[in-house]
Amino acid sequence: MTLHRTLGTCYYPEHWPEAIWSEDATRMADLGLTWVRIGEFAWSRLEPSHGDLRFDWMERAIDILHGAGLKVVLGTPTATPPRWMLDRHPDMLAVDAHGRPRGFGSRRHYCFSHDGYRSEAVRITTLLAERFGRKVEAWQTDNEYGCHDTILSHSEAARRAFRDWLAQTYQSPEALNRAWGNVFWSMDYDSFDQIDLPNLTVTEPNPSHALDFRRFSSDQVARFNAAQVAAIRAHSDAPISHNYMGRIVEFDHFALGAQMEIATWDSYPLGFLEDRLEETAEFKRHYARQGDPDFQAFHHDLYRAVAARFPDHETARWWVMEQQPGPVNWAPHNPAPLPGMVRLWTWEAFAHGAECVSYFRWRQAPFAQEQYHAGLLRPDSVEAEGFHEAAEVARELRAAPQVEIAQAPVALVFDYASAWAWAVQPQGQGCDYFRLVFEVYRGLRKLGLSIDIVPPDTARLDGYGLVLVPGLITLSDALKQALQDTDAQVLLGPRSNAKTRTLSIPLPLPPAFPGLDVTVSRVETLRRDMPVPMEGAGHVVLWQETLEGTAKVMDRDAAGHPVSMRDGHVTYLGGWPDADFLRHLLLRACAEAGIATLDLPPDIRLRQAGATRFVFNHGPDSVEFDGMILPPAGVARQT
Amino acid sequence: MTLHRTLGTCYYPEHWPEAIWSEDATRMADLGLTWVRIGEFAWSRLEPSHGDLRFDWMERAIDILHGAGLKVVLGTPTATPPRWMLDRHPDMLAVDAHGRPRGFGSRRHYCFSHDGYRSEAVRITTLLAERFGRKVEAWQTDNEYGCHDTILSHSEAARRAFRDWLAQTYQSPEALNRAWGNVFWSMDYDSFDQIDLPNLTVTEPNPSHALDFRRFSSDQVARFNAAQVAAIRAHSDAPISHNYMGRIVEFDHFALGAQMEIATWDSYPLGFLEDRLEETAEFKRHYARQGDPDFQAFHHDLYRAVAARFPDHETARWWVMEQQPGPVNWAPHNPAPLPGMVRLWTWEAFAHGAECVSYFRWRQAPFAQEQYHAGLLRPDSVEAEGFHEAAEVARELRAAPQVEIAQAPVALVFDYASAWAWAVQPQGQGCDYFRLVFEVYRGLRKLGLSIDIVPPDTARLDGYGLVLVPGLITLSDALKQALQDTDAQVLLGPRSNAKTRTLSIPLPLPPAFPGLDVTVSRVETLRRDMPVPMEGAGHVVLWQETLEGTAKVMDRDAAGHPVSMRDGHVTYLGGWPDADFLRHLLLRACAEAGIATLDLPPDIRLRQAGATRFVFNHGPDSVEFDGMILPPAGVARQT
Amino acid sequence: MTLHRTLGTCYYPEHWPEAIWSEDATRMADLGLTWVRIGEFAWSRLEPSHGDLRFDWMERAIDILHGAGLKVVLGTPTATPPRWMLDRHPDMLAVDAHGRPRGFGSRRHYCFSHDGYRSEAVRITTLLAERFGRKVEAWQTDNEYGCHDTILSHSEAARRAFRDWLAQTYQSPEALNRAWGNVFWSMDYDSFDQIDLPNLTVTEPNPSHALDFRRFSSDQVARFNAAQVAAIRAHSDAPISHNYMGRIVEFDHFALGAQMEIATWDSYPLGFLEDRLEETAEFKRHYARQGDPDFQAFHHDLYRAVAARFPDHETARWWVMEQQPGPVNWAPHNPAPLPGMVRLWTWEAFAHGAECVSYFRWRQAPFAQEQYHAGLLRPDSVEAEGFHEAAEVARELRAAPQVEIAQAPVALVFDYASAWAWAVQPQGQGCDYFRLVFEVYRGLRKLGLSIDIVPPDTARLDGYGLVLVPGLITLSDALKQALQDTDAQVLLGPRSNAKTRTLSIPLPLPPAFPGLDVTVSRVETLRRDMPVPMEGAGHVVLWQETLEGTAKVMDRDAAGHPVSMRDGHVTYLGGWPDADFLRHLLLRACAEAGIATLDLPPDIRLRQAGATRFVFNHGPDSVEFDGMILPPAGVARQT
Repeated sequence: MTLHRTLGTCYYPEHWPEAIWSEDATRMADLGLTWVRIGEFAWSRLEPSHGDLRFDWMERAIDILHGAGLKVVLGTPTATPPRWMLDRHPDMLAVDAHGRPRGFGSRRHYCFSHDGYRSEAVRITTLLAERFGRKVEAWQTDNEYGCHDTILSHSEAARRAFRDWLAQTYQSPEALNRAWGNVFWSMDYDSFDQIDLPNLTVTEPNPSHALDFRRFSSDQVARFNAAQVAAIRAHSDAPISHNYMGRIVEFDHFALGAQMEIATWDSYPLGFLEDRLEETAEFKRHYARQGDPDFQAFHHDLYRAVAARFPDHETARWWVMEQQPGPVNWAPHNPAPLPGMVRLWTWEAFAHGAECVSYFRWRQAPFAQEQYHAGLLRPDSVEAEGFHEAAEVARELRAAPQVEIAQAPVALVFDYASAWAWAVQPQGQGCDYFRLVFEVYRGLRKLGLSIDIVPPDTARLDGYGLVLVPGLITLSDALKQALQDTDAQVLLGPRSNAKTRTLSIPLPLPPAFPGLDVTVSRVETLRRDMPVPMEGAGHVVLWQETLEGTAKVMDRDAAGHPVSMRDGHVTYLGGWPDADFLRHLLLRACAEAGIATLDLPPDIRLRQAGATRFVFNHGPDSVEFDGMILPPAGVARQT
Repeated sequence: MTLHRTLGTCYYPEHWPEAIWSEDATRMADLGLTWVRIGEFAWSRLEPSHGDLRFDWMERAIDILHGAGLKVVLGTPTATPPRWMLDRHPDMLAVDAHGRPRGFGSRRHYCFSHDGYRSEAVRITTLLAERFGRKVEAWQTDNEYGCHDTILSHSEAARRAFRDWLAQTYQSPEALNRAWGNVFWSMDYDSFDQIDLPNLTVTEPNPSHALDFRRFSSDQVARFNAAQVAAIRAHSDAPISHNYMGRIVEFDHFALGAQMEIATWDSYPLGFLEDRLEETAEFKRHYARQGDPDFQAFHHDLYRAVAARFPDHETARWWVMEQQPGPVNWAPHNPAPLPGMVRLWTWEAFAHGAECVSYFRWRQAPFAQEQYHAGLLRPDSVEAEGFHEAAEVARELRAAPQVEIAQAPVALVFDYASAWAWAVQPQGQGCDYFRLVFEVYRGLRKLGLSIDIVPPDTARLDGYGLVLVPGLITLSDALKQALQDTDAQVLLGPRSNAKTRTLSIPLPLPPAFPGLDVTVSRVETLRRDMPVPMEGAGHVVLWQETLEGTAKVMDRDAAGHPVSMRDGHVTYLGGWPDADFLRHLLLRACAEAGIATLDLPPDIRLRQAGATRFVFNHGPDSVEFDGMILPPAGVARQT
Repeated sequence: MTLHRTLGTCYYPEHWPEAIWSEDATRMADLGLTWVRIGEFAWSRLEPSHGDLRFDWMERAIDILHGAGLKVVLGTPTATPPRWMLDRHPDMLAVDAHGRPRGFGSRRHYCFSHDGYRSEAVRITTLLAERFGRKVEAWQTDNEYGCHDTILSHSEAARRAFRDWLAQTYQSPEALNRAWGNVFWSMDYDSFDQIDLPNLTVTEPNPSHALDFRRFSSDQVARFNAAQVAAIRAHSDAPISHNYMGRIVEFDHFALGAQMEIATWDSYPLGFLEDRLEETAEFKRHYARQGDPDFQAFHHDLYRAVAARFPDHETARWWVMEQQPGPVNWAPHNPAPLPGMVRLWTWEAFAHGAECVSYFRWRQAPFAQEQYHAGLLRPDSVEAEGFHEAAEVARELRAAPQVEIAQAPVALVFDYASAWAWAVQPQGQGCDYFRLVFEVYRGLRKLGLSIDIVPPDTARLDGYGLVLVPGLITLSDALKQALQDTDAQVLLGPRSNAKTRTLSIPLPLPPAFPGLDVTVSRVETLRRDMPVPMEGAGHVVLWQETLEGTAKVMDRDAAGHPVSMRDGHVTYLGGWPDADFLRHLLLRACAEAGIATLDLPPDIRLRQAGATRFVFNHGPDSVEFDGMILPPAGVARQT
């Protein structure tokens, strides 16, 4: 499967005098852009007061962009309800875990459970779809669900909706009491109307209660989005997308992926490194101008999997909707990218299968919250550094626009509900699901591998040589069967299949995997400064399980306790591996699966795209690899 | 005084099918247990809705346990009021210092000052006592008062009760204004109804105000408990207990000790080390699987003193009601104990005089908040590590059940009100009363000493060779007299007798101790990284006083300032000693008192129990001591 | 200009029995004090209930002080409204950023925007002025505006007043929307009544919104103070003062300086070092008993500039109203000053031009919040350490009471609005305006220079050889002209003139300084551990700008990027200099300006007072300087 790759940008005509729209459009086209996203924050200008629709300027803007040969993604403006909305729905605000309403004055100030606001969102979406449904080339719903910690709301609307959700899920309070084990501390309920949200309890709430609140909250996002999607589809055949963020796990992206043709995400490598990764100061310093070498790739592969959920796809359609083009404004520190990195990030996205990479934003805004967020243009419309790198990519694309995408040899299962379960019941500081999975991903990448991320209900694993299922808290029946059926080497654990769907410890004890005689008889969590040395390479850190059973012991810690055990093609890993132990595990598994690995220099990463192998230098220095010298931020294409 | 020592466990029949109760009871008896505590979280099953009493299952459970030859401690279930209670008393919730009600969904969700809830607690207690008062062998009131920071409540009920308490204490607003020095910042009150709780003030409240709120809050606990005790006594002759926690100082445990026959506490050595001690990472790593070598012993000695407050005791009756048997779930990290430590902890408790050590819990619960808290049995009823160590102790007990208890050569005064005073007015970061007293305790233990902890109103100190009174903020008349009368060496200070009962600086200046011409003319607090070197060994840290007077200077800092001064048998210490300076002080005092000391290896601790000396190895390695090799977690009994 | 220098103290007759007032007054006079400040916390004793005036005791106190030859500063007691005030104005409390009222029980519990309370403040001030306006020698309004973070209030009163302020400032919502760029995230307002305070938004509020709230809040302080000043002037000709604090930048002190004859400040060198400076542990340890060697001098120079705003002054009149005389009670750690430091601090104030240094407090209070705050006397009226040092200064003053004050060779611009702008939009952790300016001040002091601080609307810079304008976010027209007109070397940047008054990025891009062809094309912020090495000495840290233009490049970083550029006498600095690079910049600028510099030992600081040069040793060890040996805390006077 090969695809023409395109570039785009995010543009806010409402921010600039209409007189310059035309020149902007011409410059975009001249730069070699194909797509322009507009509209997602424009509600106050589309409808300055309730019912007072002002869509003409938007139409003129679209016409101008079209006139320059550009295609348009139209965003629904529901992430930024105008101030008058609050007069109509004073209780629409989300409420934080301390009980404080999250007020107007920035963005995302709504509760997903508020019916009144959802109706307003459908109303404006319908109006936009009626007017522009046959005009624009694509849609985006809302903007960055979950950004600014906005999935969990503790409002009255959320409380009512949660009770309904529980009633539908459990049917009787008795069933809920049993499922949650409410007998434990006399937490039994007589009626669903007695159940509050799990915030502000004296000590930790029942983890089953907390996990169900997470499940509910995720479902509310899916419901909110589905309503917009339906409103658009009634009037438009254009594909619909949403722009997800990095390391936001508070809702199930796969559920949304099934609703929309295109998955997109917003890639801010430098901001994410400073803001969202628990790495050492030395690591953050080394990559301060390049970003983490694996974080973007992980999300490319993740959102390719999210996109694949849409039915009837030949191939997964996914984009980078917002690509960092220079310094941003929102991380603890905001350096500029190393020259060449904007180009590298763009090509890396293409190598992982992106259809389009769209730079955020066309022109740096000199006002409001993001004044120090670079654009392709400076506030004075002079070309900024990112502009020139985008231009270089555009030239390269004209010469060679196609990238092939093929199945990877390795599959890694990612599951949002597991992230919630670990967060609700980490059992030890630092025990975080995303971190575990991402460390496994990084370990695979350091061996030169390309990876497919797959969802937790995957029923077929054909074609993979190695399947990794770290930390997946509850195995679905489908996946359990697929893991049994596959010819691939399978690595389960730690904490895989450790809980029931309502977060109890199952009986028989975990992992209870057919054909694998291993029992986790005890769980320990460890101080970060107490790594447990292995008999061979590396250590177990943070999380260690005591394993029993007749399966073959593959690895032992230095004291002789089993750490990994195997029956047939399935290996269970009873601890969180550090980088060295993980490398040992992966090398052995790859060898057994017949998957070739490499010993990459630390800053080099590869991506196999069909017959083409992309090589990326994420380091600040030149690196010799495979007979070539890659400069800093260097990109090579080998066939 | 010698006693037969017993073992027990905590059991929740309501958590398990009735079909397995009998087998459980048999296994408990076979293991060698004597006691089973039940009922303390069972309110929602004893009374599913108000007035709907379901005591029959409890009676059947007791009968089954009795049938197996076990004795029963019945807990009143008042730590976990059911959800329907909130409908009857919506304002019964405690309120945190930020003004947020502490909601239903875990436990301890009540305010001690709420009269309606106290009546409900008395009602259920009375009903239980009527039904089971002649049946069970002992009682427990509520569960772990103060756990989860639940003593201080800022509710409306607390505010009203505090005003009453102040009115009874001071009789007139003018008297209160004088006692608190309210003239200072125009804080005078005209009426008790104007006085709020001391939270949410602009800057720190008047420390006298804050201290009285602490005193009041402690009194409310005593009042709450007394009401339950009275309700039980009306129908039962069985002894009554409460299970205290470690390092909870927010209420006066001595006041409760005077109400009940038995003091018990809940000993979680690994959780406490991670969660409640300010030690270095190196220290926490070294003891991660053994717990702090002095923390449990300190509480054994403390709760022996608390138990001794009950009138008409021949000897103090105290237990460990909950003994950690494996990993717990609630500390920042939760490792498993070193093999042998469960046995060591048990024997250490007996060496300090415990009547019974009861393991928490019988079977690990696979649901709700404490799923990863080990039991003697795993969730699948297989015997866990702790089971085998308990069995070993049971065998040892059958061979040698008796431990003698005698007065120690050293007395250490512990005072809850001093903890409040230091917390309210620390004057420097890290200046904490518990920490000071515990460091002195540790210093004594490192010299091989056994210690009696005594309350702050102790009137007789006969038989002690050394009495330590660190940080006791206000000396009672009784103790002042006893300290004068004793033949023992007395070590006062730092900050001893530094304040009036309402937390003013007294005139003449402290310590104003009869016969001791020492005046603290100035107080300084020091950065942790600014230890003041002594002329001899060690340093003063954190807290340093300037001393004047004609008493003999015993120690000076390197600059020549007096740090300790003595008249007769009383020495005043004007600074917080580090470990080396403390060792010097204690060695000198012991030498003068004729108390033999030892130079113990770092991980070894001793306890003299009559003619028997117990030796414990708290370290992870074997240690040579007194001609023997103690293995890790080793226990030796020398006579 | 030479002045006789005087000493004083802060006295609270209401705290002590009237019987000892006379002896106190005699001792003050004997010590050599001239001034006594009284009354600023006495409201509850001046008016125990509303309208019940008790001024007689105050009159007797003043008479006794006068009788001993002392002069009186009378404070208005409005920082501590009595409890009954809350019954009259229940909504007068300030509200914190979390929405919690800041309650009664300490001090400063009022919102500056509450009209009712402001009327009460004017009422009590008027009553005091009527009674004592012809009797006292000076006045103080309120006490330490801004202490305990009390400038920003999020009350309903503040919200209403903010809306009024916005309406007056912008006249129409449309103008405000344009100025703030509210189109950005559909934040447009239709009416001023829709605008809330900028707290509790989902993510950061519009920085223009936040900055205007800061401007408004500062204006409310000026308005509150002006009302008191007017009330006093109606009945008194005595000069009026306010006692400012250290490093409080939440209101514009220059605006208040213009209202009152005398500026005073409260100098707590040890408390400030521990509490308000972001220095290394090593630095804090070294200066723990001496305080930061530049912090007090900075504020002396700052408040001299604040005082100079009062019209018709021949010279700026400023005092130290509260001088730390020993340990305080409120910092994280509270050590005692090195012997001699109280004297040094006093002489340093005189060297910078103070008229009076007044010690806080006469006698240590044994009750309420500040019990461990030293006085000149101990609680038992014995003379404390500070007393003897004050006595030494008094003797020295009798011998040589005059200090000359002259213009410094260097001017440093300080601007409160810039502090707000940086706080609202720091763009990187650690980027703080006060810190930047203070680091420049310290760099100048280390070269032996004396400095004048000047306000941001300074229109004349005659007589200076060097003018520094670091971080001044918006240049006023007056200052811009003065900087063009001056013959001095001018150093602008980093971030100087970087924003419009409403905090947008201006076009053309900054610094847009006439005659200086430099453009800041990009802003980066850097991790603290990523210093950018310069081609020459030192590094750029935290904040780095990309500079373009035709001005001459003066300094480049090691990669060759311009860091400073010059046209004529104006140099623009595009980064935050570390100490070494700053030293290089300052040495070059001084050389060009013909200003002599010195290579001072690290602990030595100088102050040129006319023909006299003061030399201060801020270190704990003796230092050789200029042919003399200065002992620790040594003061030398060279002519």
